[in-house]
Amino acid sequence: MANRSFNKQYTIGIDIGGTKMSAVLFDGQEVVADYLLATPKDNLEHFMIILKALIEPLQDRAGKDKIVVKGIGLGIAAELDYKENKALEAPNLPFINGQNLAANLAARLGLENIKMDNDAHCFLLAEMKLGAGKRLNNVLGVIIGTGIGGAWWFNNQIYRGSHSGTRGPGWSIIDCKEGINLEQAYHKLAQNNPAALAEEAFRGDILAEKSYQEFGHYLGISLANIVNLIDPQLIIINGGAVESSGLFISTTKKVMRQYIKNEETKKIRIVKAKLGARAGAIGAALLVS
Amino acid sequence: MANRSFNKQYTIGIDIGGTKMSAVLFDGQEVVADYLLATPKDNLEHFMIILKALIEPLQDRAGKDKIVVKGIGLGIAAELDYKENKALEAPNLPFINGQNLAANLAARLGLENIKMDNDAHCFLLAEMKLGAGKRLNNVLGVIIGTGIGGAWWFNNQIYRGSHSGTRGPGWSIIDCKEGINLEQAYHKLAQNNPAALAEEAFRGDILAEKSYQEFGHYLGISLANIVNLIDPQLIIINGGAVESSGLFISTTKKVMRQYIKNEETKKIRIVKAKLGARAGAIGAALLVS
Repeated sequence: MANRSFNKQYTIGIDIGGTKMSAVLFDGQEVVADYLLATPKDNLEHFMIILKALIEPLQDRAGKDKIVVKGIGLGIAAELDYKENKALEAPNLPFINGQNLAANLAARLGLENIKMDNDAHCFLLAEMKLGAGKRLNNVLGVIIGTGIGGAWWFNNQIYRGSHSGTRGPGWSIIDCKEGINLEQAYHKLAQNNPAALAEEAFRGDILAEKSYQEFGHYLGISLANIVNLIDPQLIIINGGAVESSGLFISTTKKVMRQYIKNEETKKIRIVKAKLGARAGAIGAALLVS
Repeated sequence: MANRSFNKQYTIGIDIGGTKMSAVLFDGQEVVADYLLATPKDNLEHFMIILKALIEPLQDRAGKDKIVVKGIGLGIAAELDYKENKALEAPNLPFINGQNLAANLAARLGLENIKMDNDAHCFLLAEMKLGAGKRLNNVLGVIIGTGIGGAWWFNNQIYRGSHSGTRGPGWSIIDCKEGINLEQAYHKLAQNNPAALAEEAFRGDILAEKSYQEFGHYLGISLANIVNLIDPQLIIINGGAVESSGLFISTTKKVMRQYIKNEETKKIRIVKAKLGARAGAIGAALLVS
């Protein structure tokens, strides 16, 4: 028994979204414990305090199990500068722009092995290793949460481009004349409150349902544009809007297939993340596994 | 001298566009002879006769040089079914839909080694091996000719996707409400005659110039969407419109950079094919080299 504990290692993964922060204690295969807090929206100091408060109960649990926490992974809803190791642009968490959250957290916790990556990268990493993408090698991941993120898995890794400049479908322009991108259209339809839109739609609000329909149409076209370019095997979706995806996913699939030209590629499936709401946190934990 | 001729091999490459067919006799490094004919638009039989007439002078030249023609490559402005080895959809040459041009030509010429690929794939292959893409490994190629084609070179080869279902930027939807793609917008602006538009613009026609400006804007957005996804090192353009690219390329670059998010990626250059109008034919010749 002592040997087993000695060999076993835990990692902690935290998915930092625009609305919620979700943390897991992970043993490499399974979630041992998890914890969820609302993302502070006011300033960096408060944010860091809550981030630490999210980690401490998981560290305590690891202590009780007498198993070492090997490291902490952060999945952040932001574009990252991987050279400088800082957040470049976090549209829904502006106070972390320019911040090296990993270094800040490391100083507060007295820990060294803290890594960070984009939240969509983390979610897709988890799904490829342990979820809906197992045994596949060319998969698009889309997060529809507070913002719209994306990641592409190809050749056994997250595709990062030549300058780590890859962006998800949220940035794709859906209206050339107005220059509006998918995320802007989503925010406009949701009146800048995607969480409230999801709730209203869930309660059966007709206007919210219509907004999701229109969003589903735009999402379908954005996905068709991406699929016509990279021709993946599968699309995995995740994020807060997945709970309401019944309201838009059939429109999305129909529109997407209408604009995919290749007959084989047209058959592509869109599935929900198998690891659910914890996929991003599990992927963050995998960063340091 | 006899030995040198014995070791040397020629291949023939033909770029079959919607307006012109360009053929080269190629020694692996240089074009030995070339030949150009208008693409017959009436029916398959006439098309095959002209295709044969394009090849024969190059075969004669090889005969005079006493050098073997190892094979013939065809670059076709069409989506191809690589399993069945036939043209799937040639919007500007509808009579070749469903045809295996390689087998048809092989029977007519009594030759065996004839291969075909999409014309944009051929053009980019040539530019990567011998042109503007040498020493790079992540390059987008765009043909603006009768239609708009594209190809992406990544990891030492043309990227073909999971079902050979990749498409060029011509298919990318630029107006979600109307469902119009870039090629449709281009044809509308050119009143279905891109060659005439290029000529009018070349002669200084104001309306034609305006059409190119609008097209340049749409092209910029389509390229930004692609660049935000695959983050390449370089974009190489080719096709009939390249001669008129002075009329739209600065708009395209400006608009493209406006919608590229990553600062490093924003610096991406758009250059003309170094091998010029013969790039596609040289790439077709490389298919059998």
